[in-house]
Amino acid sequence: MTSEVLHADLLPAVDTALSEFLSARRAELAQMDPRIATAADRIGEFLAGGKRIRPAFCWWGWRAGGGRDEVDDCAPVVRVAAALELIQACALLHDDLIDRSETRRGRPAVHRAEAKAHADAGWSGDPDHFGANIALLFGDLALAWADDLFVTGAAALQAIDRAQPVWHAMRTEVLAGQLLDVLTSAAPAAEADLQRSDAFAVIRLKTAGYTVVRPLLLGAALAGADASVTGRLRRYGEAVGTAFQLRDDLLGVFGDPLVTGKPAGDDLAEGKRTVLLALARQQLLASGRDAELAELDAGIGSGPAGHTVDPAAVDQLRTIIASTAAADLLERQILQLVADGTAELAGLPEPVAEGLTAFATAATRRRS
Amino acid sequence: MTSEVLHADLLPAVDTALSEFLSARRAELAQMDPRIATAADRIGEFLAGGKRIRPAFCWWGWRAGGGRDEVDDCAPVVRVAAALELIQACALLHDDLIDRSETRRGRPAVHRAEAKAHADAGWSGDPDHFGANIALLFGDLALAWADDLFVTGAAALQAIDRAQPVWHAMRTEVLAGQLLDVLTSAAPAAEADLQRSDAFAVIRLKTAGYTVVRPLLLGAALAGADASVTGRLRRYGEAVGTAFQLRDDLLGVFGDPLVTGKPAGDDLAEGKRTVLLALARQQLLASGRDAELAELDAGIGSGPAGHTVDPAAVDQLRTIIASTAAADLLERQILQLVADGTAELAGLPEPVAEGLTAFATAATRRRS
Repeated sequence: MTSEVLHADLLPAVDTALSEFLSARRAELAQMDPRIATAADRIGEFLAGGKRIRPAFCWWGWRAGGGRDEVDDCAPVVRVAAALELIQACALLHDDLIDRSETRRGRPAVHRAEAKAHADAGWSGDPDHFGANIALLFGDLALAWADDLFVTGAAALQAIDRAQPVWHAMRTEVLAGQLLDVLTSAAPAAEADLQRSDAFAVIRLKTAGYTVVRPLLLGAALAGADASVTGRLRRYGEAVGTAFQLRDDLLGVFGDPLVTGKPAGDDLAEGKRTVLLALARQQLLASGRDAELAELDAGIGSGPAGHTVDPAAVDQLRTIIASTAAADLLERQILQLVADGTAELAGLPEPVAEGLTAFATAATRRRS
Repeated sequence: MTSEVLHADLLPAVDTALSEFLSARRAELAQMDPRIATAADRIGEFLAGGKRIRPAFCWWGWRAGGGRDEVDDCAPVVRVAAALELIQACALLHDDLIDRSETRRGRPAVHRAEAKAHADAGWSGDPDHFGANIALLFGDLALAWADDLFVTGAAALQAIDRAQPVWHAMRTEVLAGQLLDVLTSAAPAAEADLQRSDAFAVIRLKTAGYTVVRPLLLGAALAGADASVTGRLRRYGEAVGTAFQLRDDLLGVFGDPLVTGKPAGDDLAEGKRTVLLALARQQLLASGRDAELAELDAGIGSGPAGHTVDPAAVDQLRTIIASTAAADLLERQILQLVADGTAELAGLPEPVAEGLTAFATAATRRRS
């Protein structure tokens, strides 16, 4: 629902840029050794299901900064936008290792698929470790290749000096956010309100910054946008990016697995420290519902490998959270953030303001 | 022994560039959240024991291409050289995950140290998985930061267009080599001579290309070297880089643990598919020593987690290999490669030829 709203012409252009780049990488790998050439194909297939949200924001940042509107005439901008998808490939491949996820977009996660291929072929060594190693290296390749695509695009626009600091900040923030997520999952803050502010800090880095603010500012930097425009884009991105993640948190607990492509209550099963969970804990604490709080704490991510596997147990956790006002509070916060974010768009060119408003609205209503 | 031979002034300059860059990253992370700021320190500590071989080659490539000799006047070249150390940090952090290594340079590997810190603190979740996640993310940060340091250095020299293709090839080759290593360890070729050519292919990508050829060509590209110089550097690098790895393979089986900082026979324990092993297998096969061949094959990397842990079993494997002519053949090959490589240096400026000859000789004699 999202990137069509943002720019219809951009999607096929980004797909073409990615497939041309990955074909060249395939040829390069094949020359080294035919057995490893499939790495480029696997990364391409892995990217095929994506919504291209980050490239779309990069394009709108470019337009907001005064860049030309014809996608066909802006090949270097499209290359930079496409590079964001390769960063995302690395982020997802490595996240799935960190979260020990079984599936991604309704299909087996890459490390699981590679483990199965190893076992089916009867190769030597531990299939699970082999699968993890392949997914680790595919992610590293995607991260390195993202830089190659970014640098050549930005250099063609003579914009390295302007765009490099944004590119740097984006990758540092998403990795810092992931690091903070791992740390606060292992050692959650003792106080319920600190848990909530930690969850917001992770959102600020991993989602608002990485998914919305930095892609917008990257496109704006390519176009040489002024400080007033970048300020508006930043404030829009922080508000709407946060709303986007809060919706994601709600879907991670209450979403329909057939629509989200993830197992029901996946966030609860893997013990993710979301704002929703922190709010529910605060509510239970404030109303003295100690038994339910203890049940919630004991059940979160308590299965083998940190996963709660019993669907009935996950259902029970979901029921406890639903019995609090946490979800209602988040719904209201999402509406407020969208209102705050879209108010920043007033001074921007009409099509940009329209597109970013449409995204913000769609992001609050999505079901997947 | 190595980089002192190559350039005495360069080492402190590279160390300063790294520590300035990592201090800035520390401040950047601390602003996001104080709990994650230590990531920059850990990466710096991890790099502290390195020999700075790749930066040294980058510097000699720069000099071979006609670049100025004063380290103090060439800050952007030093930054690019330092960026190679950050790539190496990622390579080592992720290699240790892939090989499930317990130690690195005689100290606990980062994933082991982080697992221990998790267990000591009594945090929630699986300590080993936590340690692996942290090492994974530190490696990703180092890889992303390497690019930042490279791009700003190369841009300051107006050399992005010349240097970027070399930078790209280097990272793709080292990751492709690692991928091929993982694949051929899981599914070794059936024929003994194919095993040997696979082991050489891994060396060409992971060591000769990544450690010697590409750093030399990167420096040469920064200086705008002509095709004759880059051709000589490439041929030198391929020969001497291969000799360097063959020495490493010999040390991995016969080296003194007190000098190498690795457990005795580490390569045998982890089942590494080296040229030395492939040669020993060929020799046993050719002389009909089937029982010893079977014993060798059964013992290689056969312990839990792919590791042979019993020192007596590792000793027995070492004895079988030592009873063949494999080590002698490799020693002769090393001498020949060094002779071939240094013959390429004839047309280069005198100090460069001297430095690279000294490296090649030292690399054949090293004990660690």
